[in-house]
Amino acid sequence: MGNPHPLYDKHVATLDRALTAIRERGYWSAFNESPSPRVHGEEAAPRGTAAFESYLGTEFPLDQPGTTGWAGGEQSPFGVRLDVRYPHADVDALLVAAAAAMPGWRDAGPQTRVGVCLEILTRLQENIFELANAVQFTSGQAFVMAFQAGGAHALDRALEALAYGYAEMTRTPAEALWEKPAGKGEPLRMNKTWHVVPRGIALVIGCNTFPTWNSYPGLFASLVTGNAVVVKPHPRAVLPLAITVKYAREVLAEAGFDPNLVTLAAEEPGEGLASVLALRPEVRIVDFTGSTEYGDWLEANARQAAVYTEKAGVNTIIIDSTDNFAGMCANIAFSLVLYSGQMCTAPQNILVPRDGIATEAGHKSFDEVASGIAAAVGKLTGDPARAVELTGAIVNDGVLERLERVRDLGEILLDSQAVTHPAFADAVVRTPLILKLDADREQVYGNEWFGPISFVIATDSTAHSLDIFRRTVGRRGALTASIYSRDDKVLDEAEWAALDVGVHVSANLTGGVFVNQSAAFSDFHGSGANAAANAALTDGAYVASRFRVVQSRRHV
Amino acid sequence: MGNPHPLYDKHVATLDRALTAIRERGYWSAFNESPSPRVHGEEAAPRGTAAFESYLGTEFPLDQPGTTGWAGGEQSPFGVRLDVRYPHADVDALLVAAAAAMPGWRDAGPQTRVGVCLEILTRLQENIFELANAVQFTSGQAFVMAFQAGGAHALDRALEALAYGYAEMTRTPAEALWEKPAGKGEPLRMNKTWHVVPRGIALVIGCNTFPTWNSYPGLFASLVTGNAVVVKPHPRAVLPLAITVKYAREVLAEAGFDPNLVTLAAEEPGEGLASVLALRPEVRIVDFTGSTEYGDWLEANARQAAVYTEKAGVNTIIIDSTDNFAGMCANIAFSLVLYSGQMCTAPQNILVPRDGIATEAGHKSFDEVASGIAAAVGKLTGDPARAVELTGAIVNDGVLERLERVRDLGEILLDSQAVTHPAFADAVVRTPLILKLDADREQVYGNEWFGPISFVIATDSTAHSLDIFRRTVGRRGALTASIYSRDDKVLDEAEWAALDVGVHVSANLTGGVFVNQSAAFSDFHGSGANAAANAALTDGAYVASRFRVVQSRRHV
Repeated sequence: MGNPHPLYDKHVATLDRALTAIRERGYWSAFNESPSPRVHGEEAAPRGTAAFESYLGTEFPLDQPGTTGWAGGEQSPFGVRLDVRYPHADVDALLVAAAAAMPGWRDAGPQTRVGVCLEILTRLQENIFELANAVQFTSGQAFVMAFQAGGAHALDRALEALAYGYAEMTRTPAEALWEKPAGKGEPLRMNKTWHVVPRGIALVIGCNTFPTWNSYPGLFASLVTGNAVVVKPHPRAVLPLAITVKYAREVLAEAGFDPNLVTLAAEEPGEGLASVLALRPEVRIVDFTGSTEYGDWLEANARQAAVYTEKAGVNTIIIDSTDNFAGMCANIAFSLVLYSGQMCTAPQNILVPRDGIATEAGHKSFDEVASGIAAAVGKLTGDPARAVELTGAIVNDGVLERLERVRDLGEILLDSQAVTHPAFADAVVRTPLILKLDADREQVYGNEWFGPISFVIATDSTAHSLDIFRRTVGRRGALTASIYSRDDKVLDEAEWAALDVGVHVSANLTGGVFVNQSAAFSDFHGSGANAAANAALTDGAYVASRFRVVQSRRHV
Repeated sequence: MGNPHPLYDKHVATLDRALTAIRERGYWSAFNESPSPRVHGEEAAPRGTAAFESYLGTEFPLDQPGTTGWAGGEQSPFGVRLDVRYPHADVDALLVAAAAAMPGWRDAGPQTRVGVCLEILTRLQENIFELANAVQFTSGQAFVMAFQAGGAHALDRALEALAYGYAEMTRTPAEALWEKPAGKGEPLRMNKTWHVVPRGIALVIGCNTFPTWNSYPGLFASLVTGNAVVVKPHPRAVLPLAITVKYAREVLAEAGFDPNLVTLAAEEPGEGLASVLALRPEVRIVDFTGSTEYGDWLEANARQAAVYTEKAGVNTIIIDSTDNFAGMCANIAFSLVLYSGQMCTAPQNILVPRDGIATEAGHKSFDEVASGIAAAVGKLTGDPARAVELTGAIVNDGVLERLERVRDLGEILLDSQAVTHPAFADAVVRTPLILKLDADREQVYGNEWFGPISFVIATDSTAHSLDIFRRTVGRRGALTASIYSRDDKVLDEAEWAALDVGVHVSANLTGGVFVNQSAAFSDFHGSGANAAANAALTDGAYVASRFRVVQSRRHV
């Protein structure tokens, strides 16, 4: 295999730091989350905007094999005309090219692969404003969030996946001497060699809301472990992944590898290309983020592949008591307003005893708690210019339809408002809708209502809230949970309940940490232990089955 | 969680050594493979025999819940009357008890669990002769092999699985402080806790030939990661696993845990209990060794579970040339004779150029190579008293039927002989059958013929042999492969071909290392990269999905 590529040496310090981070899981980040010119220089932002705009109304420049036509049709939630057309590939040609690219990549070994992958991240980071614009105008995220979640945090998650993948591949040494004593005779001696071999072609199926953040872990976990990756973006959020594929191919080619290790599979609306690809025998890994229905379909049908899914769930907040009522309301409100509740981690069900709760300012009735949260939401969304920088825009019509459908199912505590975006007249902006429900309306709150929709639910007691939490999350899953209590016993009970239903739980968030945000290298996203996801981003289980180890032994 | 159990401290040195071993993969063994009284004392062997004999004709002493009757009917390949009856459990009662046992085990934490599991291995090792007798008389292995493969090596593989499981659980720290700088303000600080949670109830489906060796990795990988384990033995090889379950329950109870963490699910012949258990929603992990047909069925149907299967394959030897003709023939012969080819790793297809090969003694024709191997087999099996110590007995009638069926499909190079066992008059003993086939008879040699059946296959050239190797192993899988060549280029070509079809390969075995033997802590058994197995024993991928990590975060 020879020496690793010089890119390994270039990036080994970052890799080592990331390997330390995943062992320690304290705070660390490799990619600065601030879009400030003090970090990136004055010209980075305008250059990124210009690069983004240069794609609009054109054929996206991607020289990959099997292009038989052009596909497009993204609709920006901000009402901006995109009109980018992407190469539409012949599936056979794409998969043949991907398969042909693998042997050289496999034989290059883990060090070279991780070096090249780190260089891809560096290239993406150099073009982070271009990426952020593409994320903003396809997902509807506000700019700062698109820069952070779609740029810096996505790159951190990619690096985390690279670190886990590298650690996993190098748990087994590349070679060893085996020397078994044989009584008085000469010992038995063999040289053993272990090769990392890829599983096959990996398919990444992107989502509409977080095209990069949710795709990068699977993409880079598969790539670093030797697989070729076909990226099938959501038809409404192609550009961020097209840009990603473009830079990945550039770096691969510069490093002397076949760029067809990373290809884009854009599709016409309604084409169902994900299902075609997912069932191909050559496809041995599938990563998917999206609906429970389609995730379940993939798990049931893409049987030749290792399938990693993140699906829907009922994220829950249990309110027992607090010694910071205002902080609690403000923290919850922020989680509801951020990207209009269109994060897979945003809370939906807020369980509050109908007799109210104890606070630092005495007893608060159920209605006072509900109104406190609603008022805090109102405060964040009162000024349109400030509101849109939090809410962003509504990602697609499904969310609007759901907002209409749900409003008759409970008492409206806070109504959703249409907001006129000061900069984008056609942007579709909505503030959160909050309904009051009684605990007996589980047929409503027991399902996910994706979008700016949440329920404040009146329960008999905190014990009852915990029962509901166990039952609803046990059945539907959840990516996040949170508990407010002044009583350590209640916190512990909530933590044990969370263990039983396999959901990560945060306690007493009243400051600058929010239940819907997870930090790469420290927080796991999803657990794989409930119906909301069959894997966590990123741990050993997420990477270990993306490759195999094949051994050779020869006498010394 | 408090301090770990004292058993952790008792065994931590062994654990540490095992953790080093799996990182280095040189030679190491924790359990002495010699049955000599110099190792175990004079009384160990007779005590083991007596313990084994005490079970015969009785109800096996196992106090587990839900026993509704007794099941039995093992037929010893040595013709010894066993007549042991095992508790037949109500499935609901068994699974309820297993589920109830898990929370305390989960909450005990990785250190305590690994300490208790290591104590179970120690207890089994103290009773290794009892175990060896049980393996011998159910599987048909000769005594030394039953002691080694069924005892010491099985325990080494169990320890290896414990080490991987422990390493995997402790990759994530139990807790960490997360401190994120916040500009000029106070940093954000959170305490984070990570809990290992089990996946659910694990089902281990044992096989007839290696009831302990093939079951222990899954059993201990699942147990140490917090799951309860239901052991469903092969109806013809119950006793070794009944003894295992008995000692495991003893140790668990002594250590203060619910013994129902490990239970036995014995069945009546033809009952199909494995399928009933494998489809239960509570069963979240399945480990299986056996036929391709049933392994594929489990993978397709036990969809709620992580399914690890070892199935059939076409193990292949490629002969290109050798500088030790006699050593090569003797080494291959030993692999064919050992346990009458009834190892899942035993070679079946021996590919030899029809124009013969180069050796240290000049050119040898195809027939000379074939005869050389046949003669070496004959030498090992010529004396019945010595032969039976290698061949053991034929595990079941399926093997005899296959021997009959295959003999008309090729030219008989060496016929199978019935041998009278000097000690067990009713033992069913057969020596290897070797057929000559032309390369065009792939419809015969392209499938597994489990038992003392092998083919010497005439190919056009070594390149042709490699083609056949790629095609047959690519289609049917293999657990082992071996190449003989004096040419490093050919060795490398074979190694690359082995990578492409994902099979471990050994080169030029002419001494005391055999292709069908793998050493725990160094050799992987199976790769998961071809149709013969969907996992390797034991690596990160084998353990990583047996548990999940659930996180809690609280403000400091």
